[in-house]
Amino acid sequence: MTPREASAYLAFARATAERAGAAILPHFRAELEVEDKRNFMGYDPVTVADRAAEQVIRDAIKEAYPDHGIHGEEHGRAPGTSAYTWVIDPIDGTKSFILGQLHWGVLIALHDGAAPVLGVAYQPFVGEMFEGVAGACAHWRRGEWSRRLRTRSCAAIGDAIVATTDPRQFQTAAEQAALAVVSRDARLLRYGGDCYCYTQLAMGLVDVVIENGLQAYDIQALIPIIQAAGGVVTDWSGGRCDEGGRVVACGDPALHALLLKLLQKAA
Amino acid sequence: MTPREASAYLAFARATAERAGAAILPHFRAELEVEDKRNFMGYDPVTVADRAAEQVIRDAIKEAYPDHGIHGEEHGRAPGTSAYTWVIDPIDGTKSFILGQLHWGVLIALHDGAAPVLGVAYQPFVGEMFEGVAGACAHWRRGEWSRRLRTRSCAAIGDAIVATTDPRQFQTAAEQAALAVVSRDARLLRYGGDCYCYTQLAMGLVDVVIENGLQAYDIQALIPIIQAAGGVVTDWSGGRCDEGGRVVACGDPALHALLLKLLQKAA
Repeated sequence: MTPREASAYLAFARATAERAGAAILPHFRAELEVEDKRNFMGYDPVTVADRAAEQVIRDAIKEAYPDHGIHGEEHGRAPGTSAYTWVIDPIDGTKSFILGQLHWGVLIALHDGAAPVLGVAYQPFVGEMFEGVAGACAHWRRGEWSRRLRTRSCAAIGDAIVATTDPRQFQTAAEQAALAVVSRDARLLRYGGDCYCYTQLAMGLVDVVIENGLQAYDIQALIPIIQAAGGVVTDWSGGRCDEGGRVVACGDPALHALLLKLLQKAA
Repeated sequence: MTPREASAYLAFARATAERAGAAILPHFRAELEVEDKRNFMGYDPVTVADRAAEQVIRDAIKEAYPDHGIHGEEHGRAPGTSAYTWVIDPIDGTKSFILGQLHWGVLIALHDGAAPVLGVAYQPFVGEMFEGVAGACAHWRRGEWSRRLRTRSCAAIGDAIVATTDPRQFQTAAEQAALAVVSRDARLLRYGGDCYCYTQLAMGLVDVVIENGLQAYDIQALIPIIQAAGGVVTDWSGGRCDEGGRVVACGDPALHALLLKLLQKAA
């Protein structure tokens, strides 16, 4: 992907997230029909807003890049003929969404066959966009404002702010041990962020995110944002986390290396 | 308090919350000096933003209503010579604030000596205001938009969405039993909302909020908002919760009555 291509894909991802946001907003804080998909944590709601937003994104991709593949949370996989696949979570944080709270967003990633190479996370009600291009840089934008995203230094777990969406993601004894080694000596362990755990890590305000049971579309858009901001995000063994599963992200690569050792001992 | 007085006090509370918001925003997502106050849950951060915002509010009250009392989280109590006391949390949800997340707000209540009679909850970054006057009505406002707040019907716990900021508020066996009886049969138990648990109950999108260890300034502004929207908020025994402590709020009064019985059995 040349810088020129990256720039075009990023502009497309941004505009498409905004179109998805326009499809979502009429449903936000309205009376909603909520359907239960059931997942490993039990209740897994999906709304007409998720489905409508994903359709908007899929239609935009088919029109702009008919040879690209699509992998979305609600409408599944449609392989393309090129190496590129768009990986979509129309509303990451549907539970927060159905409560009318604010920690949710539209996630759109572009995977080039080897790795996710760019991603956007967009909160249409607040009007803020987080975006990153692998090997380049990451930005936050809201209206006329923008800032470069950079993670902060934090080499010691005792200084770290740790975020995870829900401690009930950690169900087995080994999973609970993993959460404990990463958080018990931390300055603060905070619940309830969904994609805002990762965006705030990229912004340099969260030091560690640990989660379990993620899907590819929950994390792929966030990977280039974290990496381009200076952070590291892998599975709990230090391997790739493009397909989701067990994810640990750190703003400071030195802390990430330390946590991998602690996670290995805990396993 | 006559309707005319209520209207003037509410306009003052709204304008003062906006001034506090203007004092807070330059610190939001900036590098912050965070101080640890330590409370029953451990880490209790306070920032220069909390203290600056409370000073703005106290100064406004002293100028507009010099005979009123003031009770604020950061600068304590200053008794007045009238029956009225303003009860202030300059940033409810400081932990969410220091992560750069969105579930925090400025809380301002007016207590008339018998009960909190009006309250506002304002999120300056998002620009949304929740407001309520006891015995009158509650509204949400954002820029040109407004809507009346009304809780929804939900008579059965199996249909309920339950919110609480953090399960670690429930420390003793009795407290954990209380959380369990209220949430184990619920449709969904969600963590991480702070004042947004209660505002969303008033908006008819959350059915139950249960919390423990609150302070007067954490809850007083929210009481008139919940009540004027049709909900009920008390302590776990059904008594007043103006001073904080153990709080249970329901959008549907019938569900509240049922939960009080369950909580009594669990105690």
